Amino acid sequence: MNEFEKYLKTKAAFVEKGLSKYILKIANSPEVIKDSMAYSLEAGGKRVRPVLVMAAAEAFGKKAADVMPAACAVEMVHTYSLIHDDLPSMDNDSLRRGKPTNHKVYGEDLALLAGDALLTYAFEVFAQNGDVKSIGHKNTLKALQLFANGVGSEGMVGGQVTDIYAEGLIEGKFKRITAVKKESKALSKKSVKYFLMPAKLKEVSAETVLSYIHANKTGALIRSSIEAGAVLAGASEADRANMRKYGNAMGLAFQIVDDILDVTVSEKKLGKSGSDKENAKLTFVSLYGLEVSRKYAKAVLGEAVNALNKVKAINKKKAAPLYEMADFFLTRSM
Amino acid sequence: MNEFEKYLKTKAAFVEKGLSKYILKIANSPEVIKDSMAYSLEAGGKRVRPVLVMAAAEAFGKKAADVMPAACAVEMVHTYSLIHDDLPSMDNDSLRRGKPTNHKVYGEDLALLAGDALLTYAFEVFAQNGDVKSIGHKNTLKALQLFANGVGSEGMVGGQVTDIYAEGLIEGKFKRITAVKKESKALSKKSVKYFLMPAKLKEVSAETVLSYIHANKTGALIRSSIEAGAVLAGASEADRANMRKYGNAMGLAFQIVDDILDVTVSEKKLGKSGSDKENAKLTFVSLYGLEVSRKYAKAVLGEAVNALNKVKAINKKKAAPLYEMADFFLTRSM
Repeated sequence: MNEFEKYLKTKAAFVEKGLSKYILKIANSPEVIKDSMAYSLEAGGKRVRPVLVMAAAEAFGKKAADVMPAACAVEMVHTYSLIHDDLPSMDNDSLRRGKPTNHKVYGEDLALLAGDALLTYAFEVFAQNGDVKSIGHKNTLKALQLFANGVGSEGMVGGQVTDIYAEGLIEGKFKRITAVKKESKALSKKSVKYFLMPAKLKEVSAETVLSYIHANKTGALIRSSIEAGAVLAGASEADRANMRKYGNAMGLAFQIVDDILDVTVSEKKLGKSGSDKENAKLTFVSLYGLEVSRKYAKAVLGEAVNALNKVKAINKKKAAPLYEMADFFLTRSM
Repeated sequence: MNEFEKYLKTKAAFVEKGLSKYILKIANSPEVIKDSMAYSLEAGGKRVRPVLVMAAAEAFGKKAADVMPAACAVEMVHTYSLIHDDLPSMDNDSLRRGKPTNHKVYGEDLALLAGDALLTYAFEVFAQNGDVKSIGHKNTLKALQLFANGVGSEGMVGGQVTDIYAEGLIEGKFKRITAVKKESKALSKKSVKYFLMPAKLKEVSAETVLSYIHANKTGALIRSSIEAGAVLAGASEADRANMRKYGNAMGLAFQIVDDILDVTVSEKKLGKSGSDKENAKLTFVSLYGLEVSRKYAKAVLGEAVNALNKVKAINKKKAAPLYEMADFFLTRSM
């Protein structure tokens, strides 16, 4: 295990301690919902997002503990998004990380509410960062605002919406949209663009749709985690803008690598290049192929490092984990 | 139309202007999700909760406009809770206020995401109250924290969970819980109490369960609206505590009156005293009867007024709408 892997492991364990503390603090809920929240929150994972909050704050000279509330909030939001994604009306998944999904254990209604409760609790916990003296109220409020924007309809949720409707787009079928049109009078006059993209964008191609999905569905939460850490640590506007660029690139790279792994892992496991479902889905690999996708991931991570180099107030030594995280994203197998 | 009705109407129109502004600000979402959010947000209602935020702040000498962001946030949270409540896995309702429910128009997945997005946007908008000079960052952050607590698993969501599992409790059947036990190994060893109440409570009776549901399912959002207005306006700890008491009483009264209206409106419309569904449901009327429920509502609103009388820093003239709101709750037909 190298230095960075040790860093990642130590920080992840630190975050998990924080998460347990926040779960224990819930005293006025029916036990079953507290349990349901904890079930998914404690299901594991590398805790990359909260570690990014901490690594970003550390780069600006703060301690990891100073941003513990925000870091835990980020993981709660990630967890809520997984619970809701797995629901029958969404991806309808039965297993996640080898365990039954939340709704398989607690039922659909409780899983829905556990997601709602985690999202809500995330903001309650995030707001507590204002009580940390070295952070303060003003920066906490600003970071919370940016974070909320990053995970709502203009960020993560927006990306999920486009992803849902884009299914089949690569084959030019728009199956999904056709189905919606049939079901609902209210939506029948709307254009394809209406379902896929913000109104301000002029054109809709598979490329712009894919780039919107990637920037938002997965990327926005990663970018927001990084941005939150920087803003909490009091980054200047210019530095924040470059941290945002770093975050955007990191988020995009994460998703490209994810698309690549989807195919290569299936290849290994199933002995064929991706399932039908994957073929119908608009992904980097389905659009550009494996080779180009790999090159693109490298290039994007190069951009991430460039943006990081431009941030003035960060301590290069303390920022080492942010640089190493870029390498890690390229080689990860999460 | 009396003075208070005019006040309520003017303020509701003011809130709706604010809501439209916040919807228009959404520029980076696929149009369909923005539409879906606006569809439910603009579906009407008396906007009682945001008006309570404003009335509470005004009582402490602030202007209604000073708390516009928080007031709109409260209505967004109310709207998200309705969208998720109506979903097939919850109440499975097709109509709300005479219009098709969100998932009937936009599909289940989009309705789920519209609720998620509204809840998230609520916190983004709430945080913007910190930029209002007369309110500031510290009070905004404190109010946001209390508000989030009031609408999460320790408040509104907790009440919904108990309400779901308490169905049939009045007949001692626990149908629902039995069903869950059969379905899921993970939950099979749990006690009835586990599904209904916080662990710290010693006993579970129909009365304690009903009181938990009422205090939280509907009451918590009303109480949190009032508390948020007071905290944003800089109320002292002692005054805040009494505003919370006022809010708790108002929330409880609101729900009792709701239970009464459920029965009396059915009586008028259907010519019988409540449907089977209502009879199976644990409500104030089903537990105590109509007469006792009416008396109880009056007594609780008396408590609300008493608590309000104890708040030191409020201007009695400016607090008039808070007093009148208590009367309105008793006579309302929302």
